[in-house]
Amino acid sequence: MLPDVLKRLTDTIGYLPGIGDKTAMKLALFLLKSHPAYVENFAKTLSRLHAEVVPCTICGNLMGPQNTICSICSDSERKEDVLCVVEEYPDLLAIERLGIFRGKYHVLGGAISPVHGISPDDLSIQNLIHRLEPTTVQELILATNANLEGEATAAYIKERLPRSDIRVTRLSKGLPNAGAIEYADEITLINAFTGRG
Amino acid sequence: MLPDVLKRLTDTIGYLPGIGDKTAMKLALFLLKSHPAYVENFAKTLSRLHAEVVPCTICGNLMGPQNTICSICSDSERKEDVLCVVEEYPDLLAIERLGIFRGKYHVLGGAISPVHGISPDDLSIQNLIHRLEPTTVQELILATNANLEGEATAAYIKERLPRSDIRVTRLSKGLPNAGAIEYADEITLINAFTGRG
Repeated sequence: MLPDVLKRLTDTIGYLPGIGDKTAMKLALFLLKSHPAYVENFAKTLSRLHAEVVPCTICGNLMGPQNTICSICSDSERKEDVLCVVEEYPDLLAIERLGIFRGKYHVLGGAISPVHGISPDDLSIQNLIHRLEPTTVQELILATNANLEGEATAAYIKERLPRSDIRVTRLSKGLPNAGAIEYADEITLINAFTGRG
Repeated sequence: MLPDVLKRLTDTIGYLPGIGDKTAMKLALFLLKSHPAYVENFAKTLSRLHAEVVPCTICGNLMGPQNTICSICSDSERKEDVLCVVEEYPDLLAIERLGIFRGKYHVLGGAISPVHGISPDDLSIQNLIHRLEPTTVQELILATNANLEGEATAAYIKERLPRSDIRVTRLSKGLPNAGAIEYADEITLINAFTGRG
């Protein structure tokens, strides 16, 4: 019943996470009703995406293709002695948004997860270990997620450090801001108790 | 902070209805992690959308560009004496999905709405009136929405019919399926009472 291209666009949009069949159809029809220039621009941006967004060769932060290293790695104002390790690019963005961290980053590209078939070799862990070999880095912040995969990844990295004089830290765990003790889950409350001070 | 293309893709996605900034970012990053062939296909489908989905010259139903009239208008099995008028293409799809209507359609392209600046001239009303001039159509189902704009549009069309022998009907109003009287809004209940039988 649907015209061929409209059917294909609906299927393509429906493949996106969190978008069901009905929403996909609604969005495809919205695009059909939109100004052709908007849709053409959307198409062009998509077709340039993979070529024009590349990872920094040092830290894995995303950047434009005209650069060889990212703006954080090339910023001489930022401290070389603190390295913050994150799983994914959005984690880096979230921390940068705070404006309180002035060190450098390392993006792993995920977390170790046997369930999802992600082994240490799939992540940028070997690169990280090479980065730690000179004595520049004094503190390594393992800012992986506070879940099973994040903890396992942090533990794995901690065991493989090339130098014993690196101070390794994790983000603290406890009650979230405005979190009521009454409604906190057990593990959060145990963490909050254990980490009290 | 974001690479140029990624920023632009996030903005473009964020312009879609019902998609906020955070979701737009999540979807842009999902596309970046997706297989380039999927993204390339997405881009191609988008760039072909406006050229390859065209309205039927008779009824306004959407169709591929290789046709001159749509599959419904060219279907000789379908009755010529009942015409179902809908506001938008998805309304036609919803009715077709039922499989109970064997007449033909007319898609208006919206409803009269002074608030949104949509006047009768912006809709395919003049075309509809031309279609009604021969004596073929016996019943005109004004299947516009059961809201202010839909009612106004139906009333406007009803006053401008070229022949007085056309039977004009509206979809019935009342309790939705499994609707509890206790929770029905006042207007629905009034409609259900008035339309009882």
